[in-house]
Amino acid sequence: MWRSMINAVKRDIPDELLVNGKEVYQGKYYMDGKYVKKDSPNTRRFVKPLESKVCGSIREACERCGAHDGMTFSFHTEFRDGDYVAGMVAKVLVEEMGLKDITVAATSLGNAQDVIADYIEDGRVIGVQTSGVRGRIGEVISAGRLKTPAVIRSHGGRPRAVEAGEVHIDIAFLAASTSDCCGNAKGVGGKNNCGSMGFAIHDSHFADHTVIITDTLAPFPNLPSSISAIDVDCVCLVDDIGDAGKISTKEARMTDNPRELMMAEHVADVIAATPYFKDGFSFQTGVGGPSLAVNRFLEEHMLEKNIRMSFALGGTSSAVCRLQDKGLVEHILDTQDFDQGAIDHIFKNPNHHETDLSEYANPANKGAYVNKLDFVVLSALEIDTDFNVNVITGSDGVLRGAPGGHPDTAAGSKCCIIVTPLTRGRMATVCDEVVTVTTPGDCVDVLVTDYGIAVNPLRRDLIDCLDAAGIAHVTIETLRDKAYGLVGTPDRLEWEDQVVAVVEARDGTILDVVRKIRPLHLD
Amino acid sequence: MWRSMINAVKRDIPDELLVNGKEVYQGKYYMDGKYVKKDSPNTRRFVKPLESKVCGSIREACERCGAHDGMTFSFHTEFRDGDYVAGMVAKVLVEEMGLKDITVAATSLGNAQDVIADYIEDGRVIGVQTSGVRGRIGEVISAGRLKTPAVIRSHGGRPRAVEAGEVHIDIAFLAASTSDCCGNAKGVGGKNNCGSMGFAIHDSHFADHTVIITDTLAPFPNLPSSISAIDVDCVCLVDDIGDAGKISTKEARMTDNPRELMMAEHVADVIAATPYFKDGFSFQTGVGGPSLAVNRFLEEHMLEKNIRMSFALGGTSSAVCRLQDKGLVEHILDTQDFDQGAIDHIFKNPNHHETDLSEYANPANKGAYVNKLDFVVLSALEIDTDFNVNVITGSDGVLRGAPGGHPDTAAGSKCCIIVTPLTRGRMATVCDEVVTVTTPGDCVDVLVTDYGIAVNPLRRDLIDCLDAAGIAHVTIETLRDKAYGLVGTPDRLEWEDQVVAVVEARDGTILDVVRKIRPLHLD
Repeated sequence: MWRSMINAVKRDIPDELLVNGKEVYQGKYYMDGKYVKKDSPNTRRFVKPLESKVCGSIREACERCGAHDGMTFSFHTEFRDGDYVAGMVAKVLVEEMGLKDITVAATSLGNAQDVIADYIEDGRVIGVQTSGVRGRIGEVISAGRLKTPAVIRSHGGRPRAVEAGEVHIDIAFLAASTSDCCGNAKGVGGKNNCGSMGFAIHDSHFADHTVIITDTLAPFPNLPSSISAIDVDCVCLVDDIGDAGKISTKEARMTDNPRELMMAEHVADVIAATPYFKDGFSFQTGVGGPSLAVNRFLEEHMLEKNIRMSFALGGTSSAVCRLQDKGLVEHILDTQDFDQGAIDHIFKNPNHHETDLSEYANPANKGAYVNKLDFVVLSALEIDTDFNVNVITGSDGVLRGAPGGHPDTAAGSKCCIIVTPLTRGRMATVCDEVVTVTTPGDCVDVLVTDYGIAVNPLRRDLIDCLDAAGIAHVTIETLRDKAYGLVGTPDRLEWEDQVVAVVEARDGTILDVVRKIRPLHLD
Repeated sequence: MWRSMINAVKRDIPDELLVNGKEVYQGKYYMDGKYVKKDSPNTRRFVKPLESKVCGSIREACERCGAHDGMTFSFHTEFRDGDYVAGMVAKVLVEEMGLKDITVAATSLGNAQDVIADYIEDGRVIGVQTSGVRGRIGEVISAGRLKTPAVIRSHGGRPRAVEAGEVHIDIAFLAASTSDCCGNAKGVGGKNNCGSMGFAIHDSHFADHTVIITDTLAPFPNLPSSISAIDVDCVCLVDDIGDAGKISTKEARMTDNPRELMMAEHVADVIAATPYFKDGFSFQTGVGGPSLAVNRFLEEHMLEKNIRMSFALGGTSSAVCRLQDKGLVEHILDTQDFDQGAIDHIFKNPNHHETDLSEYANPANKGAYVNKLDFVVLSALEIDTDFNVNVITGSDGVLRGAPGGHPDTAAGSKCCIIVTPLTRGRMATVCDEVVTVTTPGDCVDVLVTDYGIAVNPLRRDLIDCLDAAGIAHVTIETLRDKAYGLVGTPDRLEWEDQVVAVVEARDGTILDVVRKIRPLHLD
């Protein structure tokens, strides 16, 4: 057995992780008001004028930037399932240069980066820091093949960790749709456009070295730019940085599932019943089917009350752009674009703004946008009777999800609504205890399911609002019982001792750990 | 006598200044390729959502930000002679709060900050870090009243010094034309607009605390913003942040002096004679009469050759905006606006971009815009036969000038042209040895005076160009002799030992010192 400490969401955190000042989660405002001395990069002075930073190959860029054994490299995943750059770079570092003991610091990991799973298995990649982890990478990590525990952070937790010096990036390899010869780079104007580069900007400021990878060289100066040349060491021109057609996944499309639409309508009704639903309110939805569909029903309430949204925040889909085009949304603060419509919309509309991850959600800066958010609508893989949410591990305990901005928006917003069907297949979504806590229950206010609504008892004010509006609601225990009644009480998962991943709260404290699952999923 | 070391511009630098790694100037590319670990701020975490950061008074903001004896505060001077904020803040710190041992880190200092001269005289302000220093502050520093030597830096040297940790700003007080309640701030939309806030942006990233001082509160989110709320601790609303009418000084107006116009025409002829004058060239002028007038003559050459400018850099006047409106300038990269026309032009024209001081000129980042500059036209108080330029001390040795971007653009550009009359009153402008070196001669290529043109012998290539174009030129010694013939050989200034100011080269090495003048100017 291990020595451990129980945190505020009742999770056992092994003492061996509580080193170098790491603490267990102690509530959402625990770090408020405390000071942090930011980390900073070690950078090369470019005093002598240089006509161009374009390199002949990615390898040349790696060599110019001092790529070495034990290094940490980062990349962004604004191209989502269509990203080519992370794999391209990993291959150069591992196969061409033969480097070892590499740590990958990603904004997310999925099928597009599958090759990294091979490098984990053969021991060349020994560390993973990411928000999301899906596909084969999640499987090999869950099977205990990664030498050190993966660290899972929210989108706000990532820039926080970088600024705290917990992740020091040696080289950031940043895919850009266009760049000039000096590295002024952006997500539009090329042959593969991603729109917002909100995931990439912060890395360019804090990495020791930044390499822009593009497939379209633009004339100097390529302005306005998302990444500034003053942060860029090298520019590489490749055939294709990604397949922009794969940015829009099925999750990012509007649902026509009647059950999802019904839940979305109920979410909109809850929103409209609160005092925050007034002219100038702010709003974010996740990318899941019912979350995205809320936009549609919210519009009706807005027209009825004759109110407008001051800002829509976060990952952006065409649905929100259309609301802005109709004059219902003043500003869109856009960290990433979920579809071609949004990519085409940003930069053409003066109030559709690119927003970097620190501005979006970093809990250690002087006030991220999530702190000004009235409503966020989020999905869940599971939610327990303490309102803790899991969006990282499947019911089999394997890593296959992504906190993204979930914990950040939940913590910052005045009203965080989780929308999820009560069951998925033979699995209860509402349960006694989630497999892994990724968003703590003290940040979650309302649960909307297809079998009813529950309000966190901490939010007596919201209960009163729903009562006043005549919206029926039950306790979350009632929903759990209903779920268990439909699909049965779940078997407890069996774990081995080995910690395969650490889930950090957005403030850097430890929220939960993921252990190696028994029986091994892969064997 | 003091122990000292002679630097590359033949100046005696006392050993007592060569501590903590400080070196003497060793040529313009001495630091190229060396790495620097950047400094970083110690900042407060704003985890808990805060509706507003607006304070009841500047004093409240100072207290929230921990103002203390021995602190360094900064401000920007985008309002030039119309700035109210620096004086307002200094009064609160010194008179209301009674703080002592204060250091002032300014982008410039002049008549608008005269009150600081009082605080120097009574010993409350003990340090000054600035680019320019004019008016009574220059006089009291020259009279030896400041406890520690003032440090004079270029516009690029300032962000370099901040990033190197040589200037650590405790609180930046940044005047903004508009701000929302959280600190998203910019130079337009208010009752006193300054346009570009390029002087302020870098401070907001590196100061421990940032206070926005505005006279116009805007709805949240005040986007796009120059300063981001994530870097702002407090917002103060005052009656007036400045008098925008005083931004445009006489130096910033187009000259109608025939002698100045003739020199400007000759400068344009020199430019047109070089190989860099081709489609897509880049260009900067200073704000002095003949420099500014070059725009007019350059236009003729551009039309004749049917070429366009890719970018105009630096402080921006209406003259450059008009060239852009005519389609002759692709991009304007604007660090500060010199007149109302430029203030009205920026942000309304998509290719007129706000540019911060680090992007503009910092020699320690990964390539500032000055490194891509073809031509810069600059004025001088004096230039000596080694082509060293003085723009900080008058002929009486008193501080009354401003390096600004002079040393940065001279070092970065392919062709640096100094334009100045041969004499001013009874003073020779071309001389054996300038009073103070602010731009080293290895950065200066051509001198244009009303009595002839001289080319730096280091630039054999430019001599050939002028010869090929039939442009007469002489040695700089010839011009010196002519000047001395007209007004006589100057008397040597008499100095006391006390160093009153250190002139840093843009890379942080020491270029020169200014000593206390004898007889005392003030006494």
